[in-house]
Amino acid sequence: MEIKPIAYFRSPFATKFGVPRQSGVVAELHGSIVFADDFRQPEALRGLDGYDYLWLIWGFSENVGAKKRPTVRPPLLGGNERVGVWATRSPFRPNNLGLSAVRLVGVDAERMTIEVAGADLMDGTPVYDIKPYLPYADSYPGVRAGFTEQKSWHRLEVVFSDESERLLAAEDRAVLKAVLEQDPRPHYHDSADRLYGMPFMGYDVQFRVDGDVLKVETVKRIC
Amino acid sequence: MEIKPIAYFRSPFATKFGVPRQSGVVAELHGSIVFADDFRQPEALRGLDGYDYLWLIWGFSENVGAKKRPTVRPPLLGGNERVGVWATRSPFRPNNLGLSAVRLVGVDAERMTIEVAGADLMDGTPVYDIKPYLPYADSYPGVRAGFTEQKSWHRLEVVFSDESERLLAAEDRAVLKAVLEQDPRPHYHDSADRLYGMPFMGYDVQFRVDGDVLKVETVKRIC
Repeated sequence: MEIKPIAYFRSPFATKFGVPRQSGVVAELHGSIVFADDFRQPEALRGLDGYDYLWLIWGFSENVGAKKRPTVRPPLLGGNERVGVWATRSPFRPNNLGLSAVRLVGVDAERMTIEVAGADLMDGTPVYDIKPYLPYADSYPGVRAGFTEQKSWHRLEVVFSDESERLLAAEDRAVLKAVLEQDPRPHYHDSADRLYGMPFMGYDVQFRVDGDVLKVETVKRIC
Repeated sequence: MEIKPIAYFRSPFATKFGVPRQSGVVAELHGSIVFADDFRQPEALRGLDGYDYLWLIWGFSENVGAKKRPTVRPPLLGGNERVGVWATRSPFRPNNLGLSAVRLVGVDAERMTIEVAGADLMDGTPVYDIKPYLPYADSYPGVRAGFTEQKSWHRLEVVFSDESERLLAAEDRAVLKAVLEQDPRPHYHDSADRLYGMPFMGYDVQFRVDGDVLKVETVKRIC
């Protein structure tokens, strides 16, 4: 079946580096759904403002050509243990489809954009469907969740250099802090010397991690 | 983007007549996911049994050629009021993708099938993705749910004729009862004379509805 993007996601993340590992994990993170030309129909949004959450079905567009295996190595398990792909939310999966529940912040029918929060999509991600979240059919709190139950992400303490603190508005700093607390490093990295660069909100954010402390060294405008 | 079925759904519903309007609504209803030849890899199922619920992303395969409009008329609103397609779970939507949370009943790696309960898929539906349900990212009980909050489906009282009661095993009868209580008639029908036929579990189930009472008249084996 051929599917085509109905919209594209605009996110503070220019690359996948730093994107939260699931939707909802960084609730402060705002982004927008911008409808594609063929779908700029304001009447298609009628009634959307009656919902608190939306489902997005989207594409892991970077992985379309990647080789897919029947098992994957979830970062949460340290990257060594193999689990069946259907038992994970891995981006390396047949059909390259992603699924995320996002909080609805606002609908702008004139501009044909929807502002949402808590998304785990990088900038430019194609969106194939938007559905309202129906708690009576979609919400199952407390059910068993496989290997994600036994392990949880270790949070880092985030500190800012004086320079980076001065350059970032307080609100942007709070969002960046929430993102960095999740530890965006690849799981096999653990070197205090290494300087990481993450494009975020139009900045190149440079940081180092020593033990449990992540220090933002510099932020440079890149656009 | 081209997507191809990883599996097909086997359901007691040979047609869409009677299929529950959302997943979870008829919890007793069992069905199976049968993997397609290219995806019969037992290792891809490893770890799946640690979850209680799964997401299915599937295709409204009957509607692929249908004309899509920016607004739809939800049966729950009586079929006259128009709502934007993105504010509904209507099957008449761009890209024809369906989304359902189903309860995991059992995994059979040898036969490459997964038994589930509560699905709203008809027999033969193509499945494009299976993802584990993660309560921390997917569960938002109590959030606002637009027009589905103000209205609810009217339940019918279901009675069986002596003949139909004799022909159906008690367990099958209980499932059929749960299905029929939801009132499978198109919203614009209300005639006590009309005899409906619904193919279900290999039977042609014939019933009439008079006011709030649905009477199963006959059941005939069709396969």
